Amino acid sequence: MKTEIINLSNEGVTLTAYILDSSNEMSNWNYRPAMLVIPGGGYNFCSDREAEPVAMAFASKGFNTFVLRYSIGRGKAAFPNPLNDAEEALRMIVDNSEKWHIDTNRTAAIGFSAGGHLCAALSTMGAIKPKAAVLCYPCILSSIGDILAEPVPSVDEYVDGTTPPTFIVSSREDTCVPIENSLRYADALEKAGVDFEMHIFSKGYHGFSLANEVVFSKEEDYLYNIHLSGWFELCAAWLKKTFNY
Amino acid sequence: MKTEIINLSNEGVTLTAYILDSSNEMSNWNYRPAMLVIPGGGYNFCSDREAEPVAMAFASKGFNTFVLRYSIGRGKAAFPNPLNDAEEALRMIVDNSEKWHIDTNRTAAIGFSAGGHLCAALSTMGAIKPKAAVLCYPCILSSIGDILAEPVPSVDEYVDGTTPPTFIVSSREDTCVPIENSLRYADALEKAGVDFEMHIFSKGYHGFSLANEVVFSKEEDYLYNIHLSGWFELCAAWLKKTFNY
Amino acid sequence: MKTEIINLSNEGVTLTAYILDSSNEMSNWNYRPAMLVIPGGGYNFCSDREAEPVAMAFASKGFNTFVLRYSIGRGKAAFPNPLNDAEEALRMIVDNSEKWHIDTNRTAAIGFSAGGHLCAALSTMGAIKPKAAVLCYPCILSSIGDILAEPVPSVDEYVDGTTPPTFIVSSREDTCVPIENSLRYADALEKAGVDFEMHIFSKGYHGFSLANEVVFSKEEDYLYNIHLSGWFELCAAWLKKTFNY
Amino acid sequence: MKTEIINLSNEGVTLTAYILDSSNEMSNWNYRPAMLVIPGGGYNFCSDREAEPVAMAFASKGFNTFVLRYSIGRGKAAFPNPLNDAEEALRMIVDNSEKWHIDTNRTAAIGFSAGGHLCAALSTMGAIKPKAAVLCYPCILSSIGDILAEPVPSVDEYVDGTTPPTFIVSSREDTCVPIENSLRYADALEKAGVDFEMHIFSKGYHGFSLANEVVFSKEEDYLYNIHLSGWFELCAAWLKKTFNY
Repeated sequence: MKTEIINLSNEGVTLTAYILDSSNEMSNWNYRPAMLVIPGGGYNFCSDREAEPVAMAFASKGFNTFVLRYSIGRGKAAFPNPLNDAEEALRMIVDNSEKWHIDTNRTAAIGFSAGGHLCAALSTMGAIKPKAAVLCYPCILSSIGDILAEPVPSVDEYVDGTTPPTFIVSSREDTCVPIENSLRYADALEKAGVDFEMHIFSKGYHGFSLANEVVFSKEEDYLYNIHLSGWFELCAAWLKKTFNY
Repeated sequence: MKTEIINLSNEGVTLTAYILDSSNEMSNWNYRPAMLVIPGGGYNFCSDREAEPVAMAFASKGFNTFVLRYSIGRGKAAFPNPLNDAEEALRMIVDNSEKWHIDTNRTAAIGFSAGGHLCAALSTMGAIKPKAAVLCYPCILSSIGDILAEPVPSVDEYVDGTTPPTFIVSSREDTCVPIENSLRYADALEKAGVDFEMHIFSKGYHGFSLANEVVFSKEEDYLYNIHLSGWFELCAAWLKKTFNY
Repeated sequence: MKTEIINLSNEGVTLTAYILDSSNEMSNWNYRPAMLVIPGGGYNFCSDREAEPVAMAFASKGFNTFVLRYSIGRGKAAFPNPLNDAEEALRMIVDNSEKWHIDTNRTAAIGFSAGGHLCAALSTMGAIKPKAAVLCYPCILSSIGDILAEPVPSVDEYVDGTTPPTFIVSSREDTCVPIENSLRYADALEKAGVDFEMHIFSKGYHGFSLANEVVFSKEEDYLYNIHLSGWFELCAAWLKKTFNY
Repeated sequence: MKTEIINLSNEGVTLTAYILDSSNEMSNWNYRPAMLVIPGGGYNFCSDREAEPVAMAFASKGFNTFVLRYSIGRGKAAFPNPLNDAEEALRMIVDNSEKWHIDTNRTAAIGFSAGGHLCAALSTMGAIKPKAAVLCYPCILSSIGDILAEPVPSVDEYVDGTTPPTFIVSSREDTCVPIENSLRYADALEKAGVDFEMHIFSKGYHGFSLANEVVFSKEEDYLYNIHLSGWFELCAAWLKKTFNY
């Protein structure tokens, strides 16, 4: 694996690439699916809990992965700055597909919370779009703007037939991002005839990320959320079907 | 285990009880949770694939289980006949809780397709309601009435704060019962503040039941749907949390 | 399902049959695999924790199941009395294959602890043998006789090419039946060229049975052993491969 | 993550380090468990299928990982050259524990096939030993020497009370490394009173590695071996218990 940190156009914005080695022994993987990882943090910060651990999880499934640290904070996070960051990142992945051994038909993006909003924005309003999207407890509606650094558009309104197949996971009892956000996005996908999968768990904290021992440091939090950890294998299975590898 | 077939009031309607043995070695289970199993079949028949195999699956989790074969066919299936059957069945379970070793705080019901409609009707309009409900690819909306033996009410309209916690599983590509049915019911639960969990898989046939080798006789159907089989353990985990045992 | 309790020849010995209904909707299962369940209890009793719950677990996988309550207690348990009980039970299953809808090429037996000894004895010394055997923390060696009601032969010495494919699961830290018992039986199977699968977990109590909430009443015992519960699905997958259904 | 390739003393021998980033958000992981990955290849080569993909799998569990490419080929692979390489690698990990954020009480090693032999040698004969060992279809006995580049000692003979807790996984039908190798090593661990866990699957090819789509390029091979892929989660759970994190 080679890692590389690339500065993107906006100040302080970076793309960290994790590029797996190629090998004649695994010839199916000379060109790999890509996963653009978009952490959450209310457009105020980019949470480490939703960054490298997620990249590693998808690396273990054969993906070349890319963590985007996008424009954050009041002012900088004003829409569409973060969207421009995500577009630039995805464009860079596609443009460097030979160098980075990417199968451009298998470029996915995953976002968490505010990063889920950005991932959904990329999927709907993006000048370039991923071929599959994963949204984890995503912010979708403008009504969530109160807890974010800057106002955001309701991205469900931009879903159409060009939006990629989407996987959604969230917790109903999330006290931070109401489950209504996931439900409205699923509605929009359904109306547009876009393939989707959605797992809404009854219990679980906001920000559960992979819901394993890596991201929960307190034993009681770990035990409360561990049932959620299955979402990752569900997602990996869905991606395998969606990308047909 | 003792099994018993009881004739209910309406003609041809039966309740089959599967009552597990008690044992001093498993003292937690002297009074067991109950599961009322309501198979599907478009109100035209009661599918065996969604009857005893489901009862056995919950028996393996410690439940006493009851399969309801309700009023079916044009005329007989006219609402509220099937609802009356379900109410009678649930009432019988509660009234016989001593004889059948039932914990009346842990009475659940599960319904599939048209049986999901009946289970949701019981959960919302029932004179007696289960303490938890499981809906598998349920018919919810009156618009689905065209493929049923008789017209049905849109049961989502009857959801309120007395509706029990509900687990929903379905497949988006179901060509028989549109996924809209699950989505509308989840909306209603959300608006009423009722706890729910919902798993919408991207792929899978209508009528997948347990999605294992027991219910799919053709190898290709089995392989196409096997990824869905995980819903049962997700459901069992949700019930364990919901009923706190 | 029909249940039936049959008295076998020896005093107090019974076979409880759990026969699933047939259905045209599940035509693959008109003739079902059979599972003879042999509980443990040191040849002093037959543990309920390893009886009906196990029968239900295999019923949920489509098996017709049979719980054997064999000769127990000093004197009655003297070898080969229990073996004769097991032979009689298995013979009865085969002889009633039409009535009980059994596929006689798919007759399996499962035994726990002392019942594992009996199951292994049936697999090696039986006048009639199952087509597959499952041994859970089995007693194998005569050295274990001290904790049993009567002395027993070392059944590993009787393994030969006619012994059926065997699945073994046990815990290394079992303080009651040393893991040596499982290891010696696996050796014998290997030497005889008999197919086997063996899962030895590091941690877990003797008598873990299904290792789920059904068989562990105390929360702390449940939590300590829950990681073992995966053995059942491993076993079911092995049986599906072994019996090719 | 930072990656680094370090040349060790013997010619052509390298250690590739994969060091995860630290974060205040995941304070439990400031000092991480380490996994030294030792690929197989008959002491003739180091298989890529058992190198980086394995490192990524453990990275996804929060480990800092290290792939050892040891002395191979006739002459160079003569014992104890490869053992010296492994000792040097493990010593380097411990000596750089501050720089590499390693918890020196949680240093594990995993080896596959011939790499399993080397891992077992390190666990028994090593001047420095890991705190836990994972052996995948390991070569153990000198009798396997015929298919290796150089003769090897029977490492089971060196097991004693200083050998670390060990996890073993293999396939009985492995036509390359007889299952006897795993069984003899388990015997030695048992006799020495060393904690172990062992999963012997009935079916599966030699060299199954993670047994997933990453390491099996042919669909039919993937499908034949996919049931084995569960070993990794079993191993991760065992490590979590063994290292108590």
